[in-house]
Amino acid sequence: MIRSAIPHNVELGMEVVEVGDGMALMAVPYADKLVGDPHTGVVHGGVLTALLDACSGTAVMLHPKAQGGTATSDLRSDYMRPAKPGEKIFARATCFRITRNVAFVRGTAFDVSEEEPVAISTGTFTVEPRGTRFGDTK
Amino acid sequence: MIRSAIPHNVELGMEVVEVGDGMALMAVPYADKLVGDPHTGVVHGGVLTALLDACSGTAVMLHPKAQGGTATSDLRSDYMRPAKPGEKIFARATCFRITRNVAFVRGTAFDVSEEEPVAISTGTFTVEPRGTRFGDTK
Amino acid sequence: MIRSAIPHNVELGMEVVEVGDGMALMAVPYADKLVGDPHTGVVHGGVLTALLDACSGTAVMLHPKAQGGTATSDLRSDYMRPAKPGEKIFARATCFRITRNVAFVRGTAFDVSEEEPVAISTGTFTVEPRGTRFGDTK
Amino acid sequence: MIRSAIPHNVELGMEVVEVGDGMALMAVPYADKLVGDPHTGVVHGGVLTALLDACSGTAVMLHPKAQGGTATSDLRSDYMRPAKPGEKIFARATCFRITRNVAFVRGTAFDVSEEEPVAISTGTFTVEPRGTRFGDTK
Repeated sequence: MIRSAIPHNVELGMEVVEVGDGMALMAVPYADKLVGDPHTGVVHGGVLTALLDACSGTAVMLHPKAQGGTATSDLRSDYMRPAKPGEKIFARATCFRITRNVAFVRGTAFDVSEEEPVAISTGTFTVEPRGTRFGDTK
Repeated sequence: MIRSAIPHNVELGMEVVEVGDGMALMAVPYADKLVGDPHTGVVHGGVLTALLDACSGTAVMLHPKAQGGTATSDLRSDYMRPAKPGEKIFARATCFRITRNVAFVRGTAFDVSEEEPVAISTGTFTVEPRGTRFGDTK
Repeated sequence: MIRSAIPHNVELGMEVVEVGDGMALMAVPYADKLVGDPHTGVVHGGVLTALLDACSGTAVMLHPKAQGGTATSDLRSDYMRPAKPGEKIFARATCFRITRNVAFVRGTAFDVSEEEPVAISTGTFTVEPRGTRFGDTK
Repeated sequence: MIRSAIPHNVELGMEVVEVGDGMALMAVPYADKLVGDPHTGVVHGGVLTALLDACSGTAVMLHPKAQGGTATSDLRSDYMRPAKPGEKIFARATCFRITRNVAFVRGTAFDVSEEEPVAISTGTFTVEPRGTRFGDTK
């Protein structure tokens, strides 16, 4: 299991589960501090978005055409259903198109079954030159 | 200073600074565990989105036409510049239109000056009947 | 071939190609008046969005749980590549989740191959009561 | 009155009303062929988006830091209310942030009063090098 070097991702307990060309599967284990609704124990939507964002950025970095860093330009999340209390949450993101300027990424967050997502995302990310990393250029 | 009753919002240190009709101003104090880039100390984009999301939902609840709960249907965040390390981050959200079905909300996250936002957001939220709260209906 | 009864859709030459449960495949034939770049003959991004929007709304109406009308709350389109001049443009939209309040729809616009989209979309739509149609409720 | 050289914009009757640094105000006169709902005569949402998109791209080109062309990466439109049948529709877009990679633009579409928008938009656009124009780089 790979853990992130990014403090807030560590704080959320984020793990990298699987990687491929332009694809990342990451997860966040259930924890009380991640709860958004104390009556139901449902995880906060902000956690889903943080996971989808991190997973999407990772997918960009894993794309064969990416040479340097990347940063989120924008991200849209759609929240379909509450996550099941107690369950680990996964996100799979795919960078399906990269140009000189911009990388396009779609993601899905799910708990029990990938077929019934709790949230989906679409985002565009910057494509930075070789030798850069996040934060250098904006 | 009002603190949220939502565990993950408490975890992020979220505060309600000011409220009005369909408007909320909220903040998150700088903290090491919120950092997204360990080289620069810049706060994680996921924290900005969590703040914008919470602030937007609060703005919906504060709209005169809102009678019950609300939940995020979708939220888009645009990340314009890194937040300044060490600074408290604020978000102001305004629910500028509410119909029978849907509430429309725009938000701005900023640190030193509201005129130079670090991120902006646009989202739609559900409009739940009287007596409901988040999580009842989806 | 089914043609739309909506004037602007007729103006764009929109056709319904295939329908299913919560799914629609629609098309717009290439035409000079749809061009967005006179140097290249590439179709205007606004045409892609109009097609994705119409196709997404149709997908909602075709969902087994939809009983009345629907209207677009919001729609995000991502433009991956220029459409190929001279080619008919297709869009496939799927309504993959419908609640009491909101319908979630994803779409893909393509020309030669569905595997290489020219644009994708994500949108939320209203779910209107039985007997309503577009425009009654907002 | 300035008319666009882009065929589909001409087809929609698009006019440039006012320009400034990183700002454009454009309009589309009411026409039967733009109608989205034949029962009410309300203009099609796709027309609003085409107008907001064109106006946003123009705002980017008018930003002092823009040197070459631009292209829409993504655009989100939120539809707040039906446009009033018979009224000209305006859109004002502002490019409020431009980096080496990406331009951020917000827009508002309205008919009778700018204070009561019919739709709003948020989009990111590419920032192309000097000497390029739309379509060269993607």
